[in-house]
Amino acid sequence: MSRISYLNGEFLPHEKCFVHIEDRGFQFADGAYEVTLFENGQLIDGNFHLQRLMRSLKELNIDHNFSIEELIKIQLELFSKNNFTTSATCYLQITRGVANRTPWCPKNLKNTISATVSPRKIVSPEEFERGYSAMTHDDIRWKRCDIKTINLLASTLVNQKAKDAGFDDAIFVRDNIITEATYANVFIVDAKKNLITHPANNHILCGITRNRLIKIAQENNINAIEKTFSVDEMMSACEVFLTSSSLIIRPVFKINGQEIFGKESASSPSFAKILRDAYEKFIASHG
Amino acid sequence: MSRISYLNGEFLPHEKCFVHIEDRGFQFADGAYEVTLFENGQLIDGNFHLQRLMRSLKELNIDHNFSIEELIKIQLELFSKNNFTTSATCYLQITRGVANRTPWCPKNLKNTISATVSPRKIVSPEEFERGYSAMTHDDIRWKRCDIKTINLLASTLVNQKAKDAGFDDAIFVRDNIITEATYANVFIVDAKKNLITHPANNHILCGITRNRLIKIAQENNINAIEKTFSVDEMMSACEVFLTSSSLIIRPVFKINGQEIFGKESASSPSFAKILRDAYEKFIASHG
Repeated sequence: MSRISYLNGEFLPHEKCFVHIEDRGFQFADGAYEVTLFENGQLIDGNFHLQRLMRSLKELNIDHNFSIEELIKIQLELFSKNNFTTSATCYLQITRGVANRTPWCPKNLKNTISATVSPRKIVSPEEFERGYSAMTHDDIRWKRCDIKTINLLASTLVNQKAKDAGFDDAIFVRDNIITEATYANVFIVDAKKNLITHPANNHILCGITRNRLIKIAQENNINAIEKTFSVDEMMSACEVFLTSSSLIIRPVFKINGQEIFGKESASSPSFAKILRDAYEKFIASHG
Repeated sequence: MSRISYLNGEFLPHEKCFVHIEDRGFQFADGAYEVTLFENGQLIDGNFHLQRLMRSLKELNIDHNFSIEELIKIQLELFSKNNFTTSATCYLQITRGVANRTPWCPKNLKNTISATVSPRKIVSPEEFERGYSAMTHDDIRWKRCDIKTINLLASTLVNQKAKDAGFDDAIFVRDNIITEATYANVFIVDAKKNLITHPANNHILCGITRNRLIKIAQENNINAIEKTFSVDEMMSACEVFLTSSSLIIRPVFKINGQEIFGKESASSPSFAKILRDAYEKFIASHG
């Protein structure tokens, strides 16, 4: 079966989904997006993802008439048309629309909405045990990382730079403070067993999975704190891990070549493992 | 006659120029562009624009086989097909190409190249005399403003914000230093009649028209200095003006509601006027 994607009200063969060269998304990165996990016939935290998309559109002053219900329906129908019943992700993007090129934001355009679905990428048990590597990198992104826009060039270039240097990912540093990885939030566990992550402000995207994991941590009597932490605090942490809606949790065992001690022992499993297992249970409780 | 645009080797009716939704330009702002003036059958500083485009593509690690000669030929042919012989601009964009969505930069893609032409927008003598207004705004852009990419959301949002607040444009401030306007370089003239603009580094786009005007200033015995200047230095300057390849020079007479004294007197025309007239002569000497 050929891949079906969604574009402006139509479900089309993927290779036939085209937008105009003067779409604001193609010339100005003038749009927002979400990537949402789909398990057991349902979107995982779908409402939170779409509430965030609505906020992103509002922050960009993109006029639209989409409702959360409608956007959920489109995504579920797209999974169905691609014969996915579980373990998939949906990429959903809305741009301001098409207009003669102007440096400001034209009003009342017809939005361009597109969506694609793909099989879920899983962090295998072996990958989880082996852990990931990262390098630190100056946070060269703009100052509105709280909006989930397609203005993604900084993250993309630095992600590639990390891979070229032999690392799995890069962790951004702004004024000596850890903000995020290229497409994920960063958590550390300190010596007193506090789970710490950057507070939600304009320097990070407030991850849906980040928020869910904080909640799950609290339910598991883990002390989760939203506060900034420095490079030194990260390098001396007991654990470092990255969270995102598609890959959930990636433990980081090596940063800039230096080992982080986060591997579980028989007596005390890592927070990363506790949270991963609890998150998988949370997913399984859906549908 | 209908508008003709260029896409991947073809000259097509503008309304038929479409790219795939998984073009990297549409999902990651993963591309570079140039806007070049066309007068008397020639591109103005076309070589410099295309050298900069080549540098942008190199900085983005976008593989390609385009030559400067080929890109000039495409633009000239596009002007011709739209019956422009003078006073027009060409917008030329190259993206990495189409690929299944990945957070890094896939290699060896077929680039997407598109171009459109439009009539030149002129700053009228009345607009020049009246001057423009601007507000200052935190420079929220990323830290690679030296690359002319389509990662333009920050400039676009702030440009609109300025217009919504009743100003013509916004001038970016990073750590109390003036960097650029939303789509233009900023020059000031100090009390000692020095012409000053931000040095070319990662915080500004090194404008082709900026560079040309520095050269023209020197030819006109104006002391042009590339160095940083503060908000206070700008607010107390004799003149402030913005430069770009499409609008050339826009004198700014009011910033945040405060007057800047740059209007010419009979005995001493403003540097903005001297440079505008000299630039127009430079253009007229082409072709």
